[in-house]
Amino acid sequence: MNKIKKENYTIGLLQLAFSADIKDNTKKTLAWVEKAAKKGAKVICLPELYRSQYFCQKEDSSLFDLAEAVDGPSVTAFQKVAKKLKVSIIVPIFEKRAPGLYHNSNVIIDADGSVLGVYRKMHIPDDPAFYEKYYFTPGDLGFKTFKTKYGKIGTLICWDQWYPEGARLTALKGAEVLFYPTAIGWHPSEKERYGKAQQDSWITIQRSHAIANGVYVASANRIGFEQTVKEQEGIIFWGSSFICDPQGVFIAQASEDKEEILLAEIDLTHIETIRRNWPFLRDRRIDAYEGITKRFLDE
Amino acid sequence: MNKIKKENYTIGLLQLAFSADIKDNTKKTLAWVEKAAKKGAKVICLPELYRSQYFCQKEDSSLFDLAEAVDGPSVTAFQKVAKKLKVSIIVPIFEKRAPGLYHNSNVIIDADGSVLGVYRKMHIPDDPAFYEKYYFTPGDLGFKTFKTKYGKIGTLICWDQWYPEGARLTALKGAEVLFYPTAIGWHPSEKERYGKAQQDSWITIQRSHAIANGVYVASANRIGFEQTVKEQEGIIFWGSSFICDPQGVFIAQASEDKEEILLAEIDLTHIETIRRNWPFLRDRRIDAYEGITKRFLDE
Repeated sequence: MNKIKKENYTIGLLQLAFSADIKDNTKKTLAWVEKAAKKGAKVICLPELYRSQYFCQKEDSSLFDLAEAVDGPSVTAFQKVAKKLKVSIIVPIFEKRAPGLYHNSNVIIDADGSVLGVYRKMHIPDDPAFYEKYYFTPGDLGFKTFKTKYGKIGTLICWDQWYPEGARLTALKGAEVLFYPTAIGWHPSEKERYGKAQQDSWITIQRSHAIANGVYVASANRIGFEQTVKEQEGIIFWGSSFICDPQGVFIAQASEDKEEILLAEIDLTHIETIRRNWPFLRDRRIDAYEGITKRFLDE
Repeated sequence: MNKIKKENYTIGLLQLAFSADIKDNTKKTLAWVEKAAKKGAKVICLPELYRSQYFCQKEDSSLFDLAEAVDGPSVTAFQKVAKKLKVSIIVPIFEKRAPGLYHNSNVIIDADGSVLGVYRKMHIPDDPAFYEKYYFTPGDLGFKTFKTKYGKIGTLICWDQWYPEGARLTALKGAEVLFYPTAIGWHPSEKERYGKAQQDSWITIQRSHAIANGVYVASANRIGFEQTVKEQEGIIFWGSSFICDPQGVFIAQASEDKEEILLAEIDLTHIETIRRNWPFLRDRRIDAYEGITKRFLDE
């Protein structure tokens, strides 16, 4: 286990658009990692499934060809850059674990280029044009933290962001920041009527994880319109990546439609201060929460 | 068990100021219940510990005299009004359970005037000028719902609002609305610097319970400046009571400093629609949440 330097550190989120050209997506993202590192980011997070367009808009078995092993070419490329720049990188991949067994995963690379570990998306959505249950087996590694060179981080993925349980368990494992690589957007036909409320719910629920747990939350979404099925209306990814502090206060917020780097300092003293003033962890009723492991409490 | 009419119903929150005159507080609150009922409210919720000023600003054993039994004079008075007006009322009391044993409780009165049940505040805070751990034994009844004549409601109290676990467990028991009688305010010396962020965190965490669980959330706070200890600066209660829908969208919002009634319709079809579109309950990983019953997951 590597020792964590107990100093503040800067995190960087990449908010990017992705094309149908897989090689180009990786090349471009590697370049953005370099930019973020130059700006001082020490822990850098990419958007969910950064390597391709959001392919879950249809169920097509040939698309499993997009998957890669944890030690596949994408991760290897980011390992090199991590080592060169001395940064930790959260690389979200479509993970091929075995023939016919796939996950939606984060590979956490440390600043020496080694793979620190893997988080596999625990909560898998399934919605029109977000057919993830077809592609991704639910994670079997539980909720996790990773001791990077710079700090102890937790990572989750997209749909996980709607579950207070995932945030809580990751925070209870000592995470200073919860990273949420994300691919969320609007159905174009719904945007005008429901768009604002949907986006606001998404921001609110994630800020609430920061508040409830006294941790930083950093959510990296993609931007751009992607239509991978001609007969369907496609998805407008809503960007709006953000970082908030342990009281839920915005530190950095991105646009809805521009490629950007968001930076923020993880201030360990601020975590301590907020938790002293809002001592929620002190008063949890752990004797009364066992029902959380039930599907529903029918009476 | 009484049968619930599966129809929409209107709820009413009372946002009030309270004086040092205990009799007057009850009399006045009874009058506001009548007003709310006239406006169509069928389930009416009072602010936390409505009967007195917020006495927890100091630790003083004589203040236990303020406590009343569940079948004490306050509840009896509200039972009469409930029966007369055919409304259900959530009456938050300082409960005297036995000599030396006190709780911060909600008594839920049904529309026929009967006492449906009691909820005892599960999470007890303790902060300068909010010395609740001195007065209130943590609840031993767990998280609860109540089948009123009009609908199935859940009630929690104030500090509970910071805990996603309490909201989740109450929602899993079938609550359509989570009511949070509350007494929260600013230390005057902190208001300018921290006030906005504190209030915003309070609103955000409660809206997140609506979003995560697909339920209405209704939070009733008091208003006014109360200084029960001369040598201390007192508390400015921040009002801002609100009701939001199952997607966290505000339906009704009160001022910071006026006595008001907030009304909203609980639309059962809307709950169904939101939960179909945001099927979070479907995808919970109940096989992976057991750590929630631990204090911390030290590694």
